[in-house]
Amino acid sequence: MIQGKQTWVFNNKPTILSTGVVGGPFEAEGAIQEDFDKFYDDLWFGQDSYEKAHRVLYEDACSIALNKAGIQKDQVHFYIAGDLINQITPSSFSARTLAVPYIGLFGACSTSMEGLALSSLIIDNGGADYILTGAASHNSAVEKQFRYPTEYGGQKPPTSQWTVTGAGVALIGKNAIGPQITSATIGKVIDMGLSDPFNMGGAMAPAAVDTIEAHLRDRGISASYYDVIATGDLGKIGRRVSYDLLNEHGVLQDDGMYKDCGLIIYKQDQPVFSGASGAGCSATVTYGHLLNQMKQGTIKKLLVVATGALLSPLSFQQKETIPCIAHAVSIEMS
Amino acid sequence: MIQGKQTWVFNNKPTILSTGVVGGPFEAEGAIQEDFDKFYDDLWFGQDSYEKAHRVLYEDACSIALNKAGIQKDQVHFYIAGDLINQITPSSFSARTLAVPYIGLFGACSTSMEGLALSSLIIDNGGADYILTGAASHNSAVEKQFRYPTEYGGQKPPTSQWTVTGAGVALIGKNAIGPQITSATIGKVIDMGLSDPFNMGGAMAPAAVDTIEAHLRDRGISASYYDVIATGDLGKIGRRVSYDLLNEHGVLQDDGMYKDCGLIIYKQDQPVFSGASGAGCSATVTYGHLLNQMKQGTIKKLLVVATGALLSPLSFQQKETIPCIAHAVSIEMS
Repeated sequence: MIQGKQTWVFNNKPTILSTGVVGGPFEAEGAIQEDFDKFYDDLWFGQDSYEKAHRVLYEDACSIALNKAGIQKDQVHFYIAGDLINQITPSSFSARTLAVPYIGLFGACSTSMEGLALSSLIIDNGGADYILTGAASHNSAVEKQFRYPTEYGGQKPPTSQWTVTGAGVALIGKNAIGPQITSATIGKVIDMGLSDPFNMGGAMAPAAVDTIEAHLRDRGISASYYDVIATGDLGKIGRRVSYDLLNEHGVLQDDGMYKDCGLIIYKQDQPVFSGASGAGCSATVTYGHLLNQMKQGTIKKLLVVATGALLSPLSFQQKETIPCIAHAVSIEMS
Repeated sequence: MIQGKQTWVFNNKPTILSTGVVGGPFEAEGAIQEDFDKFYDDLWFGQDSYEKAHRVLYEDACSIALNKAGIQKDQVHFYIAGDLINQITPSSFSARTLAVPYIGLFGACSTSMEGLALSSLIIDNGGADYILTGAASHNSAVEKQFRYPTEYGGQKPPTSQWTVTGAGVALIGKNAIGPQITSATIGKVIDMGLSDPFNMGGAMAPAAVDTIEAHLRDRGISASYYDVIATGDLGKIGRRVSYDLLNEHGVLQDDGMYKDCGLIIYKQDQPVFSGASGAGCSATVTYGHLLNQMKQGTIKKLLVVATGALLSPLSFQQKETIPCIAHAVSIEMS
């Protein structure tokens, strides 16, 4: 099943059976509103903290995915999830509600594909019939940890990104008709010495490049094998830097097929600076918009490369550069 | 491979090829000194922060495990690790040093067995030749997050535990002579409404009970199948509570075979209150002491049940009870 250095190839066609995609009020005004299942119209969701609202995103997305597939939660073997909050409390609280055996992950904004890679591996080898996996973020819970609390009203530079309030969850099952997971590449930690929490896209770009090149090398394919390669949340700066690197390395010549979830989710006139970010960014865009494009036939072969900055120098409070990672998963319509 | 509700049974004999076990000065005075490979004689390890010292624990343990097995790090497919620190920075920093594709976990003190379960599943199905997996904690880095910083000099109640400074890492490979991983049970989040960060053992006890009962039910065996069942870090209170529950449920009648890593690592006269804790507790005791007992023939069949409190109410700063989890892995000498 391992192929090359760091890629799993799946032969038994683990399939995305259904998804649940939930967003906040800012996402409701975004560019891909139709690809969400549910929106909340304020950031509190009736809870008394943003972390609890963050948990609700996950709980809703899981319920929606289960309902769509007509699967009961006691048929689900495992719930594989994570988020950006310290001690991933929203994920663990939602796992408590769900009451399904739980594998907690920390991959920052790369969590969606870290979870999808592991879930596919488990399903592919008969380790489960059904797995719920996903990622989520909540702007007000995450920004106060990774950047500055919104209430500070701090000026943001143009390189900064906007954390998505949203959860994307997928129900993975065995060999069905639909979007099938064909391979996954686990990334290395890449750290090019950047330390600016307001330019995480730039910091993460080399990790995306490293994983994309490893993926293509391991599988023995070229970028043109895919209709779309979509990074997680590099934003304008990171997408440009990573495209230029891939282009210089002779890997990518087609700017049009190289997308970034962080540039898909919001409208041009929304004040999101360099683009969207957060573990919920690649999760909602992949499990909502991109999968819908696959179902409509616009995309047949998709590589999603979720990128994560594994710490924020602001929250770490020590002089450190930002270790970054990217995990890639290929999804192909059967 | 899935058996029952939440247990993986491994048929291809993933094996612990070697281990690296590193501790701090307090562990050097403990009850199982001979089972460690290396000690540091202060808590700084020549670093300028406890978090960086925490990272060094991991790096040393990985190096030692690789050296013992005569395996180069570029032969290792994946590094699967986590810790208790926000954003699991020590694990991610050590992954940067190691430069091996990395899967970050958050399972609090259950991380060691979460990682061993996933590693065994991957190896068992041909997803890797070699995986490094482990868990670590550093008293001064962890206590300031999960309880109070040592510098506060706060009084601790008798139910409180002492966070281990240590890392235990295992190199897992395919079908070799030695301690083989035969099955793993992934736990559910269990929350009985406790909220005292100074009695985490009591909070975690019901999770240990739930996972042990699920494991035995899924495998269709009784507790007497094992020579030793060792929980991760319940301490005196949690071990007693969980034993009594298991005994009442008719699962366990033999008090002597029910051990707790948190009661093994230190001497009776060390001031550790209810016992040891921390992600490094089950990791060092399992990969050091318990495996040595297996090699010496004292234990042939071992079930390790690492337990985790998935948040500290102190660090969460919101009124919440403690969601807990336990993952169990069975290790048997070939």
